[in-house]
Amino acid sequence: MRHPFDLSLYLVTDPKLCGPRDFFETVAQAVRGGVTLVQLRDPDAGTRELVAIARRLKALLEPSGVPLIVNDRIDVALAAGADGVHLGQSDMEGADARRLIGEERILGISVGNASEHEASREALSGADYIGVGPVYTTATKANSGAAIGLEGLAAVTRAVGLRSVAIGGIGASNAAACIAAGAEGVAVVSAIMGADDPQAAAQALLEEIRTAKDTQ
Amino acid sequence: MRHPFDLSLYLVTDPKLCGPRDFFETVAQAVRGGVTLVQLRDPDAGTRELVAIARRLKALLEPSGVPLIVNDRIDVALAAGADGVHLGQSDMEGADARRLIGEERILGISVGNASEHEASREALSGADYIGVGPVYTTATKANSGAAIGLEGLAAVTRAVGLRSVAIGGIGASNAAACIAAGAEGVAVVSAIMGADDPQAAAQALLEEIRTAKDTQ
Repeated sequence: MRHPFDLSLYLVTDPKLCGPRDFFETVAQAVRGGVTLVQLRDPDAGTRELVAIARRLKALLEPSGVPLIVNDRIDVALAAGADGVHLGQSDMEGADARRLIGEERILGISVGNASEHEASREALSGADYIGVGPVYTTATKANSGAAIGLEGLAAVTRAVGLRSVAIGGIGASNAAACIAAGAEGVAVVSAIMGADDPQAAAQALLEEIRTAKDTQ
Repeated sequence: MRHPFDLSLYLVTDPKLCGPRDFFETVAQAVRGGVTLVQLRDPDAGTRELVAIARRLKALLEPSGVPLIVNDRIDVALAAGADGVHLGQSDMEGADARRLIGEERILGISVGNASEHEASREALSGADYIGVGPVYTTATKANSGAAIGLEGLAAVTRAVGLRSVAIGGIGASNAAACIAAGAEGVAVVSAIMGADDPQAAAQALLEEIRTAKDTQ
């Protein structure tokens, strides 16, 4: 029922983190470099603006087949025809979200650590994958909790039993370690959005990840 | 197709404006006093919290038949089974909203003045009513624009040609004037939520409004 998707290199985008460079051009370069999923996250934008950004991203991604995931806002995802939503621990619960998005859209949910998961098994209902982290400390997202490290990543992925993508402070130097710890892919923000050459940065990351998967 | 609704006395609620008093008890008193619609507006709450508040309000309103309207968040309205949504000028456009909420739910859209409307005729597509204001200056909502006065209220209501509810600085002393200017009802926040006796305040307002309608 669900469209197939590849968690290998998951780009989380925030239009505000793009600096002087054009946001959509940066995402386009990242897609040429091989990112396999794109998430729109902009908690400060109004609904109308979010819908407009999501529509432009969806049109940009369409030729490549890379799915567009919208953070938190199911209304925006539905209006823009996005391919899925990603929910944090203060966003809608999984079962409610699945009811609204239907059976075809992708549903991802953030999990901080195994005990948080144990406390929210109901909240993970309907999820296709989990975002696990922060694995390392990161300056990109404030209040994202304490870093759980590779051991935390491995423990949560094992405990939850869903496909997982590692997030938090991940770049070319530590992506392979996350795969080795059990993640199916890594989610990055600044390692691509803040790179001098977003396409080359994505290519290098994807190569690290594929090599790590091949040697498992 | 749409459920019938009565705009006469429209309570806009923000859990943060309730002071030490219990939010749900205050709304319950207002309903006993005769409010005809209740809108949940809390732009700072997370999605999960909003859904929980909306569900409690919906359960509270159910016996009275007073419809629950959710501000901006169509995802929250759908998850909680609310009766409609109200959209501001930076929220989703009317046509997108109507597509997501279906034909039975109520759709309201804020209009600040006639020229703003002229610039956004498409944005009003699908609306069942408009919220017009601020009629008077108000401290409740920052950045709500300059007061348009009774003349502005009358002009916008005439120009748009939809049922209208006046909002902004309205209480028992000026509700009748808004009805005389062409509004079908008035929307209040602090005149009820901040009253010593919310039920008595709602009753007094409703009496003003009904008397003004009878003398038209």
